[in-house]
Amino acid sequence: MTLTGKMLIGGAAVSGVGSVFHAIDPATDQLLDPAYHGASRTQVEQACALAWAAFDDYRETTPSARAAFLEAIAESIEALGEALIERAMAETGLPQARLQGERARTCQQLRTFARTLRAGEWLDVRIDRAQPQRQPLPRPDLRQRQVPLGPVAVFGASNFPLAFSVAGGDTASALAAGCPAVVKAHGAHPGTSELVGQAVRQAVARCGLPEGVFSLLFGAGREVGLGLVGDPRIKAVGFTGSRGGGLALCQAAQSRPEPIPVYAEMSSINPVLLFPAALEARGEELAQGFVASLTLGAGQFCTNPGLLLAPRGAALDRFLVTVAEQLRQCPAQVMLTPGIHQAFSAGVEALAAHPQVTKVASGLPGDGPNRCQAQVFITDAEAFLADQALHTEVFGAAALLVQYDDVAQVRHLLDALEGQLTATLQLDAADFDAAHALLPALELKAGRVLVNAWPTGVEVCDAMVHGGPFPATSDARSTSVGTASIRRFLRPVCLQGFPDGLLPLALRDANPLGLRRLIDGEREV
Amino acid sequence: MTLTGKMLIGGAAVSGVGSVFHAIDPATDQLLDPAYHGASRTQVEQACALAWAAFDDYRETTPSARAAFLEAIAESIEALGEALIERAMAETGLPQARLQGERARTCQQLRTFARTLRAGEWLDVRIDRAQPQRQPLPRPDLRQRQVPLGPVAVFGASNFPLAFSVAGGDTASALAAGCPAVVKAHGAHPGTSELVGQAVRQAVARCGLPEGVFSLLFGAGREVGLGLVGDPRIKAVGFTGSRGGGLALCQAAQSRPEPIPVYAEMSSINPVLLFPAALEARGEELAQGFVASLTLGAGQFCTNPGLLLAPRGAALDRFLVTVAEQLRQCPAQVMLTPGIHQAFSAGVEALAAHPQVTKVASGLPGDGPNRCQAQVFITDAEAFLADQALHTEVFGAAALLVQYDDVAQVRHLLDALEGQLTATLQLDAADFDAAHALLPALELKAGRVLVNAWPTGVEVCDAMVHGGPFPATSDARSTSVGTASIRRFLRPVCLQGFPDGLLPLALRDANPLGLRRLIDGEREV
Repeated sequence: MTLTGKMLIGGAAVSGVGSVFHAIDPATDQLLDPAYHGASRTQVEQACALAWAAFDDYRETTPSARAAFLEAIAESIEALGEALIERAMAETGLPQARLQGERARTCQQLRTFARTLRAGEWLDVRIDRAQPQRQPLPRPDLRQRQVPLGPVAVFGASNFPLAFSVAGGDTASALAAGCPAVVKAHGAHPGTSELVGQAVRQAVARCGLPEGVFSLLFGAGREVGLGLVGDPRIKAVGFTGSRGGGLALCQAAQSRPEPIPVYAEMSSINPVLLFPAALEARGEELAQGFVASLTLGAGQFCTNPGLLLAPRGAALDRFLVTVAEQLRQCPAQVMLTPGIHQAFSAGVEALAAHPQVTKVASGLPGDGPNRCQAQVFITDAEAFLADQALHTEVFGAAALLVQYDDVAQVRHLLDALEGQLTATLQLDAADFDAAHALLPALELKAGRVLVNAWPTGVEVCDAMVHGGPFPATSDARSTSVGTASIRRFLRPVCLQGFPDGLLPLALRDANPLGLRRLIDGEREV
Repeated sequence: MTLTGKMLIGGAAVSGVGSVFHAIDPATDQLLDPAYHGASRTQVEQACALAWAAFDDYRETTPSARAAFLEAIAESIEALGEALIERAMAETGLPQARLQGERARTCQQLRTFARTLRAGEWLDVRIDRAQPQRQPLPRPDLRQRQVPLGPVAVFGASNFPLAFSVAGGDTASALAAGCPAVVKAHGAHPGTSELVGQAVRQAVARCGLPEGVFSLLFGAGREVGLGLVGDPRIKAVGFTGSRGGGLALCQAAQSRPEPIPVYAEMSSINPVLLFPAALEARGEELAQGFVASLTLGAGQFCTNPGLLLAPRGAALDRFLVTVAEQLRQCPAQVMLTPGIHQAFSAGVEALAAHPQVTKVASGLPGDGPNRCQAQVFITDAEAFLADQALHTEVFGAAALLVQYDDVAQVRHLLDALEGQLTATLQLDAADFDAAHALLPALELKAGRVLVNAWPTGVEVCDAMVHGGPFPATSDARSTSVGTASIRRFLRPVCLQGFPDGLLPLALRDANPLGLRRLIDGEREV
């Protein structure tokens, strides 16, 4: 497939009529061809109208038909071959191995949802059978299952050009749920988006689905995104990006005549707690692990460890020596976009200029534009508690270590934090009691709590939670990674007193989908 | 127990220091003693602080301990005896049998949640075991369960002084989830609320729970409610009431530094579709069933059938004759409050004055204040589609029948409706195909779809959905009745790499709670 600069409005490849933009190779600041044009308001409406038209048929497809569709998307993405990896490398500055891994994860994610669809638990079928003789009133037959919300607007993320963009987690879970997806490509990787969009379009055609099941729009500013979220045919939104961008979408979604849910994953500094015994016993290993996690992918992960809490003392001093040694050898890595690099530099400068903050060490300086020079700073608990600005995420390989004198301060520090995607405990057996006492507070703050691991690396599985209290996400009741993410796009409907022939397959007495239903309070085995 | 006019801030019975108000007997417009005083801002904050303080211990109680607490509440309510029914009758104008039935439902609801807690499926335990040898990267051990959101603000409803007030569905599901509840009593039945509040307080003490698990506040205007929703320690809101009130709470919850979910059940006209064959075959029976459902409890149900869609013709004419005959014999019933009666009268007057609307019949006029004279009006499809004002709920025993010429119009009529709690089909075998074609559209509009039944009457069970798209509720992904309502107050947390001893009971290898877990994608049987 070759790049055309065209969007996909349903099955049609069309040029946008809005403002022009190009991808930029962040390693060189060179513009990349072809030119892309943003969607006009009319084009946004066309995509939404097609999605709405497709919804009637698409939501009536069987779970296995949708599973086959997701698998077809994975195959089509794999068939793009190295052209996809090469374009993604040019647009994002990410290395080949990372993008190959991300492609594998993207396809595995689609196939995992296919498996989830076939297993059927997501339908959550509940049947309470009629009790015509019950006193004082008979009970009618009542049957519940989950149905899709409607067309979903998906916003591609800058930092996962494959796994959280055009055919990434939000799109996969929306399509799995039975919701058409209208994707707004991230402006930083339009070529990658176009290639993946073409792959999805092929799968739509191959599976004989209505064309409106998938559209791909471009747009350089916020206009296309806000138009999409404001369209009455869009019923939910998936977003990963900045706090400002996420909050603007939440505001727009709430201001509609019919408000809709927004699943925005926005901001997290992912506190790591270094407990005394662990710090004493294996400070060097922890320092190495920390620097590796901090600098992975130039720190451009939502779960990057941006905050460490550690007890003041000799063990911490030794830890910091190793951190500095490690960090000084870290080469500068290309960041995703000039804008992200500018924001990183500004965040780092603000930390460096803060009177209560000291630099521990820096990575190697970069050679060329948009290089991320890794940074670690240190402050103390009082300063951190006194200034909310120190709680702000600096997206990239920058971290702040907060040293405290007394373990009682840790609870105060945790209570002062905003909601987080993750919280990590580095502990040894002697730290168990202290850790145990903090666990309830940690669970209030974070969607995922880790022991003796690093938060970068998010497994796509049943038990994953990539979510957390505000502002980590706009909806702490959800996860955007893992099979439970399908729930974001579902709602329950109860059918009462239906003759069997009018019931959808999932609710029929004969159980043609082979589900384990909850019947009169008992789970079928 | 005797009425004291006092609120409950945790275990302490205290007088409000805000403005004074009395309950009113709507049958006579007489004020009822004692006087009640609204909570001050400080008192609201005290209740929230106690709830927050209680949350640490309460959320760590076992499911069976919480189940025992809910059962203790039910016992304490039953122990109030007839004094509760008498006070509720005086405050609401509802008849004795209805209130006795509602008390039974309230206690059954508490006991149903106890059963749900013990069954444990609400914890949704998912375990993905470590795969240390996996290539290219090992998989860590990941375990997910649901945890409570935090203290919940519950707003008592005017029309269910027991089942959706102080110890009603919202409170029961919040307490079941592990969330302390701060209840704002509805101003129309403070005495009923005080009695039930005392019963809950007794159960809190009997079960040895922290006092902040439950507080009961009074407040005549919106100030107390908005103060509650704005308090940073409140993490979710349950509300049943007017559209204006619900939207104000949603706005307040979204404007917080940390937005929180609001489950507001607001407005529904509950369309009933009379299909041709059913109307032809059993129009008289349908007319009787309709009038009975319409006038039940003076029509003061969220699921009252306020809209009928029926094909023009001789069968409809006969149906209307019976409706008129039945309605003219319906005695006027006392409405819940003077305000509700005024709003009903204004709504009925607006329909009567509408140039495209004709009155079919009225019930008997009332003798005394606040009597609901039942009303049925008729219009045609064009007029209904042309004027959104005709889609507005008139809370009480008033309905509008929309006659259409062509079955193709029905889809237009449905598409034009806002979201609904229920949609009802009255059909015979010859109507199946027409009904089948409309089912997808009906499921988009309503949380519950009924066949050959009437929407009043909401079963408390696993399969019930009392919810629906906006503005029926503020969150179509939820139900406020039935065991699935517990989900409103839960969020998932994933624990990664935890040693068994640090895991909560629900996630331990030995499975001490006896749950059927999802392990490596397979459900335990």
